[in-house]
This record gives sequence, C-alpha cells and structure tokens, in this order.
Amino acid sequence: MPAILFDECVEGVLAADRTWLGRAVTLVESTRDQDRKATLEILQRLLPHSGGARRVGITGVPGVGKSTFIDALGTYLIAQGHRVAVLAVDPSSSISGGSILGDKTRMPNLAIHDAAYIRPSPSSGSLGGVTRTTRETMTVVEAAGFDVVLVETVGVGQSETAVADMVDFFLVLMLPGAGDELQGIKKGVLELADALVVNKSDGGNEIAAQRAKRDYRAALAMTAPVNSSWVPPVVAVSAIQKTGLEQVVTLMDDYFALMTKSGELANRRASQQVRWMWAMVEGRLRDRLQSSVEVSKLASHLEHQVAVGQTPPAAAAEQILAVFDS
Amino acid sequence: MPAILFDECVEGVLAADRTWLGRAVTLVESTRDQDRKATLEILQRLLPHSGGARRVGITGVPGVGKSTFIDALGTYLIAQGHRVAVLAVDPSSSISGGSILGDKTRMPNLAIHDAAYIRPSPSSGSLGGVTRTTRETMTVVEAAGFDVVLVETVGVGQSETAVADMVDFFLVLMLPGAGDELQGIKKGVLELADALVVNKSDGGNEIAAQRAKRDYRAALAMTAPVNSSWVPPVVAVSAIQKTGLEQVVTLMDDYFALMTKSGELANRRASQQVRWMWAMVEGRLRDRLQSSVEVSKLASHLEHQVAVGQTPPAAAAEQILAVFDS
Repeated sequence: MPAILFDECVEGVLAADRTWLGRAVTLVESTRDQDRKATLEILQRLLPHSGGARRVGITGVPGVGKSTFIDALGTYLIAQGHRVAVLAVDPSSSISGGSILGDKTRMPNLAIHDAAYIRPSPSSGSLGGVTRTTRETMTVVEAAGFDVVLVETVGVGQSETAVADMVDFFLVLMLPGAGDELQGIKKGVLELADALVVNKSDGGNEIAAQRAKRDYRAALAMTAPVNSSWVPPVVAVSAIQKTGLEQVVTLMDDYFALMTKSGELANRRASQQVRWMWAMVEGRLRDRLQSSVEVSKLASHLEHQVAVGQTPPAAAAEQILAVFDS
Repeated sequence: MPAILFDECVEGVLAADRTWLGRAVTLVESTRDQDRKATLEILQRLLPHSGGARRVGITGVPGVGKSTFIDALGTYLIAQGHRVAVLAVDPSSSISGGSILGDKTRMPNLAIHDAAYIRPSPSSGSLGGVTRTTRETMTVVEAAGFDVVLVETVGVGQSETAVADMVDFFLVLMLPGAGDELQGIKKGVLELADALVVNKSDGGNEIAAQRAKRDYRAALAMTAPVNSSWVPPVVAVSAIQKTGLEQVVTLMDDYFALMTKSGELANRRASQQVRWMWAMVEGRLRDRLQSSVEVSKLASHLEHQVAVGQTPPAAAAEQILAVFDS
C-alpha cells in the first residue's frame, strides 16, 4: 500500500467509514507476507485512537443461544447509545470450510444497525492466527469509535483462554438444566468467567434456571480466588423474551466502574499486551522450528522414541535443537 | 565422568545402592554445563529400567498436613511390600534459602526405612529447572526399583500443573472446614485432581469433614469432564490417627487397574513425555532469548511501550526477533 493510501485508510477508519473499515480489517486478516508490513504501519497509526472500548468475551456451547443473546444484548446497548462491534474467534472455521460465526443472518437486529459492525471469524487455521487477527481487528474497530467490542467464541480447544486474555470481561453462557448437565462445563471455563448467564430462562425452564443459578453460584464460590474484589455473579436471561438483559448491562457497568477505579482494568490490559508481545515472539520462533524440514523429519522419529521410552526427552530435545541450529 | 564410572554408576543405581543413587541424583541436579552430558548418558542407560512405578503427585496448602500424610501413606505402602520414593517440586526453595520439603525430620517413619528414599526439592531457581530435575530423578529412582514415587508440591505458581503433568495420579489434600474455607482452593487445582483427601478428619473435625467431603464432591462433579472413565473420589483421612489410608490405597489400586486395562495410563505417559520434549526445546529457545543482552535491553523498553499502548505488540515482537537474529 502506498503512503498516500495509508493516510486515507487511517482517516477513513477514524471517520468510521464502512468501506475503509472493511479494507483495514481485510488487510489485518491477510496472511501474505507483503501485507504484514502494511498492517503493522496501520496498527501503529490507529493504536493511539484505540483502547476506549469495553472488551467483552462471550462463550458457551453450541445450542446455548449465543447468537440470539449477542443480537439482543447488542441491540440493547445500541439503544443506550453505544456502538457495538462483534468479532469472533473460531479456530474450527478453517476446518468446517467457513465460519458460522459472524454470519449476519444469525443476528438480524444487529446486522441492520449502523451502530453495529459484525465480522465473522477469519479462517486462518491455527488458534494463534485467529487470535492475532481478532486482537488486531479490535484495535481497528476501537479506532473507528466502537465503544463495546463483543468477542464471541465457540470454545474449541484453547479458544476460551485466548479470548479471556484479550478482553476485560468474560461472560459464560449456560443452559438451565439440572444435575447431570452441569457436568458439561468444560474444564477451566468456570474459572475464566467474570459472570455467568443462564440463557433460555423461559418457557418451562424457569424452575430449572433458578436451580442452575444456585448450583453455578456455589460452583463459582469454590473456584473464585480469595480476596478478589469481584465475585462473578450469575444472571438468568431469556434472550428471546429479552428478560435479564438490563441486569447483565448493570453488572457490567458495576464491574467496569470498580475495575477502572481500582486501576485493575488498566493493569489487566497492560499485562495482556505484554504477554501477547512475548507470545508472538515465541510463536514466531515455534513457527520457524515447525517449518524446518529437518526438524520435522527428526521430530516425528524422536516423538516416537520418546513416547515408547527409548530416548530421554532431554536427549531428544538436544538433538532437535542441534538440527535447528545447523 | 569417565566411561568406567558410568558403568559403575548405572550398575550401582540398578542394584539400589544408596551411595550411587545419591551420586546419580546429585548429577541430575547439577546445573553445570559439563555435568549435563554425563546426565544424559546416565539417563539414556537407566531409561529402559524405569517406568515401572506408580507416579503419584500430592499437593495441598501449607498446614494441611502433607508431611504427616506422606509419612503415613508411605509407611502403609511399605508395609504392603512397596518401595517408596518421595520427591519434591518447590520452586520457592531457592528464594527461601533451602527447601523445607524433603527434610527427613518431617517424615520420621519413612526416613528410617530402607524401602524409602526421600529427596528434598532442588533449589535450582526456576520452575522449569526444578521440573526437569524432578522428572529426571524419577527415572533414576524407578531404575533403582522404587515402585511408588510420591511427588510433593507446595503449590507455588504453576507447580501443581507441572507436577500433575509428570505423574499418573494427582492427589489434592484439603482441610475440613465449612463454607468460606472452600474458597481457598487455588484456581484450577480441583480440575487437576484424580482424588481429593480431606485430611485432619479427627478430633472435633469429623462433622466438618463430612460436610467438606460432600461439598468437594459436588464441586468435583461440576468440573469433571463428561464421559470420563474416572470420577475423582473424595476420602476423609486422619494421617495422625492413620484412618482412611486403606481407602486411599484401594482407590489408587482401582485407578491404576482401570487405567492400565484401558490403555489410558500408557497414553497419558506417552503424551506427557512428548509434551515434555517440546517443552524442553521451547524452554531452551526461551533461555537463549532471555540470556541475550541485546534482547533484554530492547525488551524492557518495548514492554513499557506496549503496556502504555505506544507500540502494537506485533511490531514490538518483530523488533525483538530482529535483534535476536542479528
């Protein structure tokens, strides 16, 4: 991209021009080497204009009603005067041949709003790739003045952890359901939650929802860190009937007020960014390691040797490094 | 170490000679570069003779009675005909100026047994260093015929996760105590547990212990993976009165029988070893990165820039790699 286009692009994004916004995000999503330099240039220029949004991660198993919830929550926030961007982290999208996330028909009310911007998950394959794209897209949409960024994830592999580490507030959606269903909570997800939403608290589900609320609250009390200034609340919501949304927004207001005042929000963001810098350095080193033909050849042999107890892991590691260096 | 000493050392360890066992472990614990080659040679020779032990990780907060529990459990196992090694992972030991773990006076009954071997935590500083040492010491003591290896950790930082990833079975010790105390469980530890032991279920604690048992069971049910063939049980124990130990040993027997039969034990070990190999490769690359004077100088500047939102993490990562390569 020539210099004059950089200026136009940056100005376009800052003016929230849809065309330039789309171009900037497409650039960020590109995996071509030559686009990477332009991306860094654009990000450098947009960075001072970003950071003003509330970054909210949202996860939940398929069927929990994430799209409907995001559609309802986003519409509610827009009615309050906010501008809402919806991004997605779905590392499975490259496998399934196209992400269902971000499909605009899933969020019919948000999709038609000028104050909303919906971007499906990029399908760049690895979680690291998708994570990079989403983090950088966040900078772009924030610079374009979106003051709430909802980052959606389907929760494949480590994607919840990745999303929790790029947002200020992590919301976990649950289904009402008794006893056994509670076991369906994925390992570690409860501990990432800043709040739980029991969705589909409607129809004949009200009693089950109340029971689920109580059970989840007990579970959260078990996993909450001692001396934390924030105890994750549990809210019953019906995204379809639009009940409970006000409660969700109020608790988010409380959370952001508390965390801003205490300085924890700024600290959390600063350490997220620094961790991310090192993760990128290590990721690049790992990429080099994995893209080395000599290393792959040796590694598949050594993995077997190590797995069957023929070679000590330390000795195998030495061999891999020796080949990597040569 | 000359070749003839390698032979003697390996034979000595295989014969469970205490002197050679001590020398081999001291060699493994050495951080001197010239000792590393000898360590790899010894490990290579001992590896075929290792793997026959049950590897059991044990954690719990200070005051939970870990030493007394290990002393009692180890003595019980020895009475059944086992040979028991106790290793420790305590990354704080280098800070506190000497590990309390492995102090033989803490385990008076085990310490005097010929069938027991107690090794304090090495104080090599980083968790990675301690983890390496303990994993490699495990190979040595297994080759020396110890068929139960208890790996103790105080649970500083990520040490529980590190220990859980080097053992077959992870035991979490808890105190009996109502409501509020349950919140003291460290994030993520419940999810590593293959069993929970409520220790100090004696004196006036019996009722509290039963309540704790019930609460922990409920909490475990929430975090247990769906379709797992093993649901972590909760046992009330008094290490001082030696009650409940039989139950612990029986459930371990059940666990190992189940996991051996299904092949899960072998799979778990194979993937632990392969993960460990890659962790060592990445650790070595990270060491190089951190020991580069140019990188450190630049990094502390960039960390600040990234934290305050002056430089995009991606751009900072590029700069670090450029300096690392030059």
